[in-house]
Amino acid sequence: MNVVILAAGMGKRMQSSLPKVLHGLAGKPLLSHVIDTARQLHASNICVIYGHGGEQVPTAVAADDLRFARQEPQLGTGHAVAQAIPVLDDSVPTLVLYGDVPLTTPASLARLVAAAGNDKLGILTAHMADPTGLGRIVRENGNGNIVRIVEQKDANEAERQITEINTGIMLAPTVQLKSWLGQLSNNNAQGEYYLTDIVALAVASGVEVVSAQPDAIWETLGVNSKVQLAELERTHQLNIARQLLEQGVTLFDPARIDVRGHLQCGRDVSIDVGCVFIGDVVLEEGVSIGPHCVIQNARIAAGAVIKAFCHIEGAIVGPTSQIGPYARLRPGAELAEDVHIGNFVEVKNSQVAAHSKANHLAYIGDATIGSRVNIGAGTITCNYDGVNKSRTIIEDDAFIGSDSQLVAPVRVGKGATLGAGTTLTKDAPAGKLTVSRPKQLTIDSWQRPVKIKK
Amino acid sequence: MNVVILAAGMGKRMQSSLPKVLHGLAGKPLLSHVIDTARQLHASNICVIYGHGGEQVPTAVAADDLRFARQEPQLGTGHAVAQAIPVLDDSVPTLVLYGDVPLTTPASLARLVAAAGNDKLGILTAHMADPTGLGRIVRENGNGNIVRIVEQKDANEAERQITEINTGIMLAPTVQLKSWLGQLSNNNAQGEYYLTDIVALAVASGVEVVSAQPDAIWETLGVNSKVQLAELERTHQLNIARQLLEQGVTLFDPARIDVRGHLQCGRDVSIDVGCVFIGDVVLEEGVSIGPHCVIQNARIAAGAVIKAFCHIEGAIVGPTSQIGPYARLRPGAELAEDVHIGNFVEVKNSQVAAHSKANHLAYIGDATIGSRVNIGAGTITCNYDGVNKSRTIIEDDAFIGSDSQLVAPVRVGKGATLGAGTTLTKDAPAGKLTVSRPKQLTIDSWQRPVKIKK
Amino acid sequence: MNVVILAAGMGKRMQSSLPKVLHGLAGKPLLSHVIDTARQLHASNICVIYGHGGEQVPTAVAADDLRFARQEPQLGTGHAVAQAIPVLDDSVPTLVLYGDVPLTTPASLARLVAAAGNDKLGILTAHMADPTGLGRIVRENGNGNIVRIVEQKDANEAERQITEINTGIMLAPTVQLKSWLGQLSNNNAQGEYYLTDIVALAVASGVEVVSAQPDAIWETLGVNSKVQLAELERTHQLNIARQLLEQGVTLFDPARIDVRGHLQCGRDVSIDVGCVFIGDVVLEEGVSIGPHCVIQNARIAAGAVIKAFCHIEGAIVGPTSQIGPYARLRPGAELAEDVHIGNFVEVKNSQVAAHSKANHLAYIGDATIGSRVNIGAGTITCNYDGVNKSRTIIEDDAFIGSDSQLVAPVRVGKGATLGAGTTLTKDAPAGKLTVSRPKQLTIDSWQRPVKIKK
Repeated sequence: MNVVILAAGMGKRMQSSLPKVLHGLAGKPLLSHVIDTARQLHASNICVIYGHGGEQVPTAVAADDLRFARQEPQLGTGHAVAQAIPVLDDSVPTLVLYGDVPLTTPASLARLVAAAGNDKLGILTAHMADPTGLGRIVRENGNGNIVRIVEQKDANEAERQITEINTGIMLAPTVQLKSWLGQLSNNNAQGEYYLTDIVALAVASGVEVVSAQPDAIWETLGVNSKVQLAELERTHQLNIARQLLEQGVTLFDPARIDVRGHLQCGRDVSIDVGCVFIGDVVLEEGVSIGPHCVIQNARIAAGAVIKAFCHIEGAIVGPTSQIGPYARLRPGAELAEDVHIGNFVEVKNSQVAAHSKANHLAYIGDATIGSRVNIGAGTITCNYDGVNKSRTIIEDDAFIGSDSQLVAPVRVGKGATLGAGTTLTKDAPAGKLTVSRPKQLTIDSWQRPVKIKK
Repeated sequence: MNVVILAAGMGKRMQSSLPKVLHGLAGKPLLSHVIDTARQLHASNICVIYGHGGEQVPTAVAADDLRFARQEPQLGTGHAVAQAIPVLDDSVPTLVLYGDVPLTTPASLARLVAAAGNDKLGILTAHMADPTGLGRIVRENGNGNIVRIVEQKDANEAERQITEINTGIMLAPTVQLKSWLGQLSNNNAQGEYYLTDIVALAVASGVEVVSAQPDAIWETLGVNSKVQLAELERTHQLNIARQLLEQGVTLFDPARIDVRGHLQCGRDVSIDVGCVFIGDVVLEEGVSIGPHCVIQNARIAAGAVIKAFCHIEGAIVGPTSQIGPYARLRPGAELAEDVHIGNFVEVKNSQVAAHSKANHLAYIGDATIGSRVNIGAGTITCNYDGVNKSRTIIEDDAFIGSDSQLVAPVRVGKGATLGAGTTLTKDAPAGKLTVSRPKQLTIDSWQRPVKIKK
Repeated sequence: MNVVILAAGMGKRMQSSLPKVLHGLAGKPLLSHVIDTARQLHASNICVIYGHGGEQVPTAVAADDLRFARQEPQLGTGHAVAQAIPVLDDSVPTLVLYGDVPLTTPASLARLVAAAGNDKLGILTAHMADPTGLGRIVRENGNGNIVRIVEQKDANEAERQITEINTGIMLAPTVQLKSWLGQLSNNNAQGEYYLTDIVALAVASGVEVVSAQPDAIWETLGVNSKVQLAELERTHQLNIARQLLEQGVTLFDPARIDVRGHLQCGRDVSIDVGCVFIGDVVLEEGVSIGPHCVIQNARIAAGAVIKAFCHIEGAIVGPTSQIGPYARLRPGAELAEDVHIGNFVEVKNSQVAAHSKANHLAYIGDATIGSRVNIGAGTITCNYDGVNKSRTIIEDDAFIGSDSQLVAPVRVGKGATLGAGTTLTKDAPAGKLTVSRPKQLTIDSWQRPVKIKK
């Protein structure tokens, strides 16, 4: 099958400098949703028609399996499809999709493909409670065959009562499609070549016109404004939430979860309100995510507990670990089993082995931390000297006193202890106490400052 | 009244290793909601029928006032109720409830009890706009007496038009109930003993069958999937929100508050969006809760202001205190009047007396803090030496310089001042300045590091 | 035009010690919404009738362009309007609004003004699907002229079928209004003087009674309880969200944004879920706001990225700056271009010049920071000695080592470096390394503490 995706439109109502089809839905451009759908249909040939916004569109979605054809000037949907003629394979039919209609399911399109086969013209139609403004499907009395599509402005009173509408998505035998496109006229108010006019040409040439229907109306809705974009975003998010629920995930509020990418959940996962998942996230069996967490490209292993207000990106959390509240794991944070990362702690590009803890107010960057290590409150790995980053190594069973600074590169030996407030600039030997501590002094004569009048 | 609660079902559609009736709604197992309802009806005898999941169910909800009977194998609802026969008191009627129907109100059940009295069979029925799939209540023409319940598959066309359905909740005179249970047959497609069949037996034996209706359909809805669980959770939370509003609480968005336990509010309390309340929480008069706070088992005294992103658990906040944003109060935090706890500050197992402040980036654990104390930014109580916890005492009017570490056990005397960056290992005398400060040196010859090429 | 705003009611169902009209909607008292609407109509004369709550109402909304009249005792709406008689300008008509009906639009009222002109009585009426309890608009058969308003309790069966209701908002020629008010009777069940009775007096005196309709029912809804307040808050917030979308702002969820004041957005702004905007906030072109941010009285310049969980108040963020997650900017924080403020960093009353960074766990208060400065993790400006605040100055290109304390007043020279853990009490010279660092020592004989049995 050939797939032609129309993505040349301007989208003026989006009021944006970004071409309409590049606006994001669930974290992915509208057009990419349509391309991914085409891929799921195993299209042998996908051609994106672009125009408005110049090379931004092909640049944004470039891939080896895509062809691009520029429509310039933009003279209507029929004209747009015609730009693809040179690359269409005559031996298979051609499906026309729209870069701003992101949520059509492969299942619905597969029904259209099955209905049309190789020699019929297939139209995806839908029944709308209020079809005002949309092109109506006119069927022959008696046999119900589709005979034409009539636009709102051309419809007579009886035709306006028709609730079956044209979604614009069509599948056509390719040889005939090329012929029909060549016969289109722009003799209309807009001076454009309309793809829908091929229906009349098909009927005239004796090609049967059939239809299929999507499972839901939202599959056929396009995005022309930020209002519509927000509506489809919510529809899509509720769909995702329902899928998660049906898989057995506990969602505290299906209306308050956002998944922008792919969220894979094991058994007995629960997700509290207000969480946002971005990119590829895996939550293994029994994971619990607290309220208001943001998790991006991360794997959370079985039984881990992520408390409220965590921000996790590019990180791996080991089994039964306890994270947060207010923990930030940045790219390269790799936590082993039963690691505790507590409030106001940031971990970046660091490995933390099993049973180690950093429970309060710490910065752990570019560090390798062993097992059963205790990182005191306020500890900071000084990994950056203004130009270079260096690593801190803390071996098993070390105890890092509160408010220590570990000036990397530096190593804390196995079982070593650092006293509170240590500035560690040289390695700390294993098993011993290392400190850098000035003598405590009391100034007897000291007077408290007094309020200065301004 | 005897209450029999059916809680033996498997709940396969929940896709969980937890028995269905133990899944949480508003932070409490479904079954516990039903048990609590039975208690509010002053049931003299509550018997829980369990089965799937083995002893998990009786273990989870065990209480002195509950009896348990195991149904093994599980041969239908009539068979389930029959397991309770040995413990049912013949002198009072028996109410049958369902462990997966959590939200039936005591008021609705009380109406059923009143309608049935001691000698009639009472059925809780409901009128459904779409009764498809549910057992219909068939009433006699003319007098409207209930004559039987007909299941969807057995209903004729006229019966399918009936919109009054059987909720399954019934109240029966106990002596007769025992007799009817003994007469049930499993001669049906599923090979099960159905409780609903007692209706026909009652009619046959001349016992009047009466009904009562709940105030709302959601009172009768059961949980068979995570989708249904999420729907009931939302229904319940909106009910709670409405109750709070009716009590005079200001909610910025009733659809964005979660109460999992009991939230008690004084006059003129306001709660911003996205807050979660867990366990027993008391907000006294005039308390203001900012957006996105999580508050568990806490008492917030009159006039206190909790700013955005606070996480409060097991703590007491004194009157007119100001907390947050981003403050974490952990169990045992007890703040007196007009205490200020600011951003990125954690307080655990500590008493803070009136007018004291810790406004920025601090860890206060196992401490006793007097009045009018100022805790500087970055201050840390070093309460843990790797094996033992020790206390820090800071007396009235002390001033703790920024980034100090107080190595417990240690005491800061009344009116003492610690210089910035002090590591305090011995007590600081009252009224004086104590520091541990190395001399400030400038290295003239020093060169900045240069970028190392990799 | 004169505008009389009735704001004397008690609002008992609000269950609050605050007078009803002072309860907030979108961060502003109900009454202030109505006053602002009157101002948008260019009223020459605005008179607020107050009563319940004493001087709280005039105190709360006092302004030069407002007059106040006390209604004491409160004997009905007609009596309330009569309190304004001494200040009404006879040469222009008088519009009666209600302090607890906050969302009537100027556009709807302008239609009423246009309909009534200077010599007719105008009533804002609305068509309600369920008008039960509301006063019905009775029109003459044939010509459709309004002849009277009939209250629910006085309506006959035919009148109860009328779905056009009186919103209470009226515009009257002032001379006649004064006359009619004088003719009102309190001969009714409540013993009150009803404003609606002027309709009959107008008809009797041959003054034509006309009507206009609002665009939406919510424009006419009053607030009598916290339930109604919450409903109108949501209506209003969804209206604001829709306006933002129509301006081209990307909202990830229109149901999860709260705007309490004025939010001005440039092109290509996107706002993630759960954000709250308070006061006057400007987001310039291309600004991106992450999930769950609270932003108050702030300007965020073009291209800046505000990550999750930020709390920004009274601050200016420069172009392309990156803020958060978990950054707190307090009043007086002024960040220039490309400034990075990271997690668990608080900035208050400080200027930060271009390209400077404070990425982790820091407190920057009362500081002036140059360009390209790097503030290490855990750095604290010690700006407060218990009574006075002092400033820290850090010049261009300085590098502040982690966990340093800068004891203000103090200056770090251009290009100076502070070693990690420095307590800076005197100025650090430009271009050199300054430290205050004790020698690192290892105690060979030291033994780890052992667990003390309790």
